[in-house]
Amino acid sequence: MHTLDYLQTLAVETIDKQQYIKQPLSLYEPVDYAMRQGGKRIRPLLVLLAVDMFGCELQKAQPAAVAIETLHNFTLLHDDIMDASPLRRGKPTVYKQYSTNAAILSGDTMFAMAMAKLLESEADVTSDLAKVLSQASIDVCEGQTLDMDFERQDSVTIEQYIEMVRLKTSVLLGASLKMGAIIAKANAQDIKLLEYFGENIGIAFQIQDDILDCWSDLEAFGKVTGKDIADNKKTFLYLKALEVADLKQQKQLLDLFSAKFADQNEKIRQVIAIYESLNIREIAEKVAKNYTQQAMISLEKVSVEAEAKENLTTFATRLLGRKS
Amino acid sequence: MHTLDYLQTLAVETIDKQQYIKQPLSLYEPVDYAMRQGGKRIRPLLVLLAVDMFGCELQKAQPAAVAIETLHNFTLLHDDIMDASPLRRGKPTVYKQYSTNAAILSGDTMFAMAMAKLLESEADVTSDLAKVLSQASIDVCEGQTLDMDFERQDSVTIEQYIEMVRLKTSVLLGASLKMGAIIAKANAQDIKLLEYFGENIGIAFQIQDDILDCWSDLEAFGKVTGKDIADNKKTFLYLKALEVADLKQQKQLLDLFSAKFADQNEKIRQVIAIYESLNIREIAEKVAKNYTQQAMISLEKVSVEAEAKENLTTFATRLLGRKS
Repeated sequence: MHTLDYLQTLAVETIDKQQYIKQPLSLYEPVDYAMRQGGKRIRPLLVLLAVDMFGCELQKAQPAAVAIETLHNFTLLHDDIMDASPLRRGKPTVYKQYSTNAAILSGDTMFAMAMAKLLESEADVTSDLAKVLSQASIDVCEGQTLDMDFERQDSVTIEQYIEMVRLKTSVLLGASLKMGAIIAKANAQDIKLLEYFGENIGIAFQIQDDILDCWSDLEAFGKVTGKDIADNKKTFLYLKALEVADLKQQKQLLDLFSAKFADQNEKIRQVIAIYESLNIREIAEKVAKNYTQQAMISLEKVSVEAEAKENLTTFATRLLGRKS
Repeated sequence: MHTLDYLQTLAVETIDKQQYIKQPLSLYEPVDYAMRQGGKRIRPLLVLLAVDMFGCELQKAQPAAVAIETLHNFTLLHDDIMDASPLRRGKPTVYKQYSTNAAILSGDTMFAMAMAKLLESEADVTSDLAKVLSQASIDVCEGQTLDMDFERQDSVTIEQYIEMVRLKTSVLLGASLKMGAIIAKANAQDIKLLEYFGENIGIAFQIQDDILDCWSDLEAFGKVTGKDIADNKKTFLYLKALEVADLKQQKQLLDLFSAKFADQNEKIRQVIAIYESLNIREIAEKVAKNYTQQAMISLEKVSVEAEAKENLTTFATRLLGRKS
């Protein structure tokens, strides 16, 4: 067992020490650029946390840790093209920095690199790990599809929204823990429980993220308060507000979210005012807390000593306790 | 051992009987559209040919056959975006029929589906097969990068061109045979020889393709004679012509390939006239024949009876003997 801080440092180092630059440069420079954007390397950390929890050697997790981070960044490269996002972590996105073609092709390569790296794992687990990674990739694509579909849909239910979040974001967190547990030769029940923990934490995290977009103490990570509202994004807050609002407020919200509205700051102010009058923040926090509790119940059932679970509990608390 | 015609039919059926349509439709309809474009299913056929050659059950090749065709079609989806190609097999390409976003995301999903399908192979070979598929995917991306780089480069050597073709096209043919041989538990030497056969046949095929663009008896597959010339594509013919031309003809060619030239038909006519004065067709046919012979020498060395090699020999002869 290692400390959470040690594992966090190891997760970052594991990714940072990888070499990406080689010929042809026009393919691998964007890969390097994408992989050097920093970040907490949450997914590699989750792989390490699961492996460590079962007392398995951390070295065995190295290929999976690199693979899941590479896969995650591949999805970001392509999502940024599809969402026409100019910035990520305050820097130009890959398609803006290089070109759309470069972002498509370097993304594809990262997907293949992720799989190739994963296959460097120990022989008796590679096939199971590869199955997790390919299924997770399919899920992420389905989640991104639903997210884009929602933009054009008139009505989206909270249930549909949660399923989109599960596929687009949470599945990779669940897969990270699942891979770690597979590497550590955990039993099928424990593997499933950790996967479920990861997925539920992921959903809680996304709802939290929706909340922070409106009520953030800090404008960190290049994030601007109310960006989701400005983008007419159908977040948990918006969908829940539509659900609980009376007809008059519903109409107000729909009008505010129509593309015609010109003054963005005024629009953001009015939407947040409606959210506040409907207690949407409290409702959302309660739902997020519920997913966190679901996650914790799964974690409790994992067949290792309570002590071995402390890192994951602390990780989840830190992740969900952030103020920005 | 089965007849080539039987295996060809089986290759087509194996792909055609797959079901692709499911939710979300906006993700899987483009997948279905892409996979239903028909074609000879050369890569699945190569998997079957290799498996059959070693007397292995054809059923075992099914996941790999589907996987390699899905992967191949994924690369076409993304290549068509990057090359801005409006048509494939006379029908709108996926990004034209749906949208660029749909083509990116459905392509990504097909890559993941290819890997997921491959992992349904028998347990003792899945890991080796997955390594072949992921390395081949990286190679194809590198090949596509070189192809796009060449468009902007002033000078490209024949050697660089052949390496681009090997990566972009031939590697997947080699990988198809390699996977078939792995499934059939062939020895390491035979696996290598078949891979080499596939790669060399692939290079011969591409040079043949370059030749057919200028001197095609039929305008089949929606192909128009001289399209490469119209697109200023640096084909084997163009690069070889530049190599053997005198200074005057070099300048003529460079002028003709500059974007300024207005009358496309006149341009095509003049370029082909230069090629013919330099015997480029004969030179290219000789080089293609040389790669074919290299392939045949590898095939001869494979440790099965001569009879078992006949299908592959016939396949290569048919592939390279086509007139359009």
